[in-house]
Amino acid sequence: MSKSMSRDEELTTLAEAATSRRAFLRNASLTAVGGALVACGKSGEAAPATPPAAPAAAPAVNAADAMDAMHEKGMKAFPAKTAIHGNQLLAPKLVGGVKVFELTAREIQWETAPGQKVSALAYNDQVPGPQLRVREGDRVRIVLKNELKQSTAMHFHGLELPNDQDGVPYITEPPVKPGATRTYEFTVPNAGSHMYHSHHNSAYQVGLGLLGAFIVEPREAGKEPKVDQDIVFILNDGAHGYTFNGKSFPATVPIVAKKGERIRIRYMNEGMMIHPMHLHGMHQTVIAKDGWDVPAPWKCDTLNIAPGERWDVIVNCTNPGTWAFHCHILPHAESEHGMFGMVTALVVQDKIV
Amino acid sequence: MSKSMSRDEELTTLAEAATSRRAFLRNASLTAVGGALVACGKSGEAAPATPPAAPAAAPAVNAADAMDAMHEKGMKAFPAKTAIHGNQLLAPKLVGGVKVFELTAREIQWETAPGQKVSALAYNDQVPGPQLRVREGDRVRIVLKNELKQSTAMHFHGLELPNDQDGVPYITEPPVKPGATRTYEFTVPNAGSHMYHSHHNSAYQVGLGLLGAFIVEPREAGKEPKVDQDIVFILNDGAHGYTFNGKSFPATVPIVAKKGERIRIRYMNEGMMIHPMHLHGMHQTVIAKDGWDVPAPWKCDTLNIAPGERWDVIVNCTNPGTWAFHCHILPHAESEHGMFGMVTALVVQDKIV
Amino acid sequence: MSKSMSRDEELTTLAEAATSRRAFLRNASLTAVGGALVACGKSGEAAPATPPAAPAAAPAVNAADAMDAMHEKGMKAFPAKTAIHGNQLLAPKLVGGVKVFELTAREIQWETAPGQKVSALAYNDQVPGPQLRVREGDRVRIVLKNELKQSTAMHFHGLELPNDQDGVPYITEPPVKPGATRTYEFTVPNAGSHMYHSHHNSAYQVGLGLLGAFIVEPREAGKEPKVDQDIVFILNDGAHGYTFNGKSFPATVPIVAKKGERIRIRYMNEGMMIHPMHLHGMHQTVIAKDGWDVPAPWKCDTLNIAPGERWDVIVNCTNPGTWAFHCHILPHAESEHGMFGMVTALVVQDKIV
Repeated sequence: MSKSMSRDEELTTLAEAATSRRAFLRNASLTAVGGALVACGKSGEAAPATPPAAPAAAPAVNAADAMDAMHEKGMKAFPAKTAIHGNQLLAPKLVGGVKVFELTAREIQWETAPGQKVSALAYNDQVPGPQLRVREGDRVRIVLKNELKQSTAMHFHGLELPNDQDGVPYITEPPVKPGATRTYEFTVPNAGSHMYHSHHNSAYQVGLGLLGAFIVEPREAGKEPKVDQDIVFILNDGAHGYTFNGKSFPATVPIVAKKGERIRIRYMNEGMMIHPMHLHGMHQTVIAKDGWDVPAPWKCDTLNIAPGERWDVIVNCTNPGTWAFHCHILPHAESEHGMFGMVTALVVQDKIV
Repeated sequence: MSKSMSRDEELTTLAEAATSRRAFLRNASLTAVGGALVACGKSGEAAPATPPAAPAAAPAVNAADAMDAMHEKGMKAFPAKTAIHGNQLLAPKLVGGVKVFELTAREIQWETAPGQKVSALAYNDQVPGPQLRVREGDRVRIVLKNELKQSTAMHFHGLELPNDQDGVPYITEPPVKPGATRTYEFTVPNAGSHMYHSHHNSAYQVGLGLLGAFIVEPREAGKEPKVDQDIVFILNDGAHGYTFNGKSFPATVPIVAKKGERIRIRYMNEGMMIHPMHLHGMHQTVIAKDGWDVPAPWKCDTLNIAPGERWDVIVNCTNPGTWAFHCHILPHAESEHGMFGMVTALVVQDKIV
Repeated sequence: MSKSMSRDEELTTLAEAATSRRAFLRNASLTAVGGALVACGKSGEAAPATPPAAPAAAPAVNAADAMDAMHEKGMKAFPAKTAIHGNQLLAPKLVGGVKVFELTAREIQWETAPGQKVSALAYNDQVPGPQLRVREGDRVRIVLKNELKQSTAMHFHGLELPNDQDGVPYITEPPVKPGATRTYEFTVPNAGSHMYHSHHNSAYQVGLGLLGAFIVEPREAGKEPKVDQDIVFILNDGAHGYTFNGKSFPATVPIVAKKGERIRIRYMNEGMMIHPMHLHGMHQTVIAKDGWDVPAPWKCDTLNIAPGERWDVIVNCTNPGTWAFHCHILPHAESEHGMFGMVTALVVQDKIV
């Protein structure tokens, strides 16, 4: 998720972390990501829980223990390893000064959480599709190959393109038939956190995964806030359940930052419902809406993201620990069986002595 | 929808356009509103789609073709002619310096799209009811005649009226019984994009159509942003389906603007759900919330409108073409059968040479 | 609800009002809270409704009358007396300079409206739990006793606490088992309108009532806007129906202000749905989001509150009368049987001569 680390490196790191929990936890600061039960009273501030009164409460405790065990199991499984992650940065091929991205749409099986396989439509076998990252003014060519059974089309949501590159069948172009290839080409007109997705039978096709991030850095790099990490955070809620970047808790990926780091999160909602994103422990400073700077940044801890919206926020990682980070529509995040769906964590690592 | 053209003239124009598609398309710039399939490669930027590989893909193409044909049919039908449109500007009668509007509530059959007739409750046989447009400080009288089988009442949503003109049965007045007439009268206190609607059994009565726009121009005309068109855009999602100004795609009305025009859109949500309104090709600049200027205008391409809210935006029509304009909760806009519901278009016409 | 009156005094006042309607109405200005039918034409501005035409409309009038009678009955019952109200200010015990709050979670029966008893989980037998009100920099200890059949945990939503006080089982602490007690202790880090609630099996536990307001006054009192009343307004929509501070209309509590008063409302959404809060007769000026001042206050009459969000607004009570104040998702506020759920009133009392 960081700029300095490639997605593959990150995922390798996280997979290793999930395999060799000890190594991962060594890097966590006060508490454990990975669900290791935290010893209470560590900081000297919290008194340990007094033991429950034995006889009367016993059956309740047994039922409670059973429920707690499910909750604990989920937490311990986090971050759970799944076969492949989406939103991997795609390096363009440079052809005569044009940045060329090749995207193939096809049906796949997608693992949203360990053992949870769903039918998906994907670009380059990923949900979300590969992350495209270009600069304002770049000449860009997207070659879309349709290996689906349905026609499709690609819309660049947020980009103010010439009309014939807008990707809306029967308004700006014919649909891209099964087996066909369509090339979109344009000079990138405006900076910001944008998206690409299908605009044909879209409730179905986007719901099943034909979507990705299209990030445009401004022409003048100095215009960007300086950050240590730049994270794309795509929300979805279709047939795949409640997901962050195509994964459900415990298979979601934690954000891991060092204390003092400043991170940028680019929320994008590709679903059908609002998702008010709540970060524990630190606030979020809103800096942009749909790729446009807000007139004055504003602070919050719970940011409501509606379908089609993008919101960019800055988090100053000042508070060490492992912090829950989830949609605050609680049934999108927790059931009697424990946390699931739209849950991840921000791990702020203190200096390691 | 424009200020310079009356609603009737506009509708006549659009109806003619739907009848004589050629005439309408002549005015569209790069692309076609009305669903005419756009020849690809027009701008020299898009490569034509390569023909699909014949044998393996053939059955898929057949199924895809069948689906595409439904999508194309819907697009070609746009803008589809229906019997009558709502939101027609109602000229007041001037009686001793008072602007008098007469509104009769009655049951009607309403055509949301060609052949789709629904039971409606309507003011003056329109859904939305007639657009009332007055100036701050005007003395206004609304004569409400109830020809429904239920009692009703009229609330002026957003106007800061004397309490006894607020239209809430058993709080500020008795309900208006079937057959009865009630007169509301007040001096218009505050400018902005407001609404009038039933406030009795309102989930039912507003859901079925007892609603309309109440636009108040500021006392000092210089306070308004100068625009070439001023458009009321009422969202609803009740028993009539997903509608813009009482119509479902393809019977919704496109906004047609000349390149360089500046248009104002006044969104009003009279439904039960949020609708994040996404415009393709150009951004929206938010200037007012519920009739109150925002402290600093801000930009977006997807604006979330919640029930009861009004948001005013400016669109600078800089980008020629026919642009999809829809709710980004995709199941409100598209199904396997094609686009429907909350979809329209902004047509930006380039100079005709 | 006011600062100058304790919650108990207020509730006593309101209960007396409900019992002795006459006494209460004497204090209302132009109109009646309590549903007394307002005589029309009082202000000389409204013409009385003309009597309905007799023969044709008669059966409709009968059906309408039956419906109206239900609506009237609901209005007349407002504010309806229920056994106990939640959100009562809890005075801390001072122990060695630490403000100590004791909260016991247990199952109760809760009366959301007269005769409507629901199963609830409650802190100190109230829904919402007691209101905690402290100052930035205070040392605070919360002693949570779990008398539920399930484990639980307490999260302080919006407070930027040390990680081990964050209350998330298996991330920052073990769950608090049935019969056990957990002590949270911290120095209050940031001001604003915050919340405390369960963070274990939370969709269930918060939905059933384990929630409350945690108000933090700023270190420098001069930083706060000066107001005559400071009102906590918690929205919920779980198994208890649509509630304001744990009560459904007509058992909700009206806000009663004198003309010229300035009131602060702290909205908090503990539910699963948005609730766009619409005030009649006067606008709301938004001053803070999640406890953080907005860069520039902005005005509205309908404010959309998403789950987990807090919004602080100021209302200048300039317009005398009894004003409907409700969620504008109409099915959350009215049915054919009359108003219910998310409805209350703001009563602005004119000078009593």
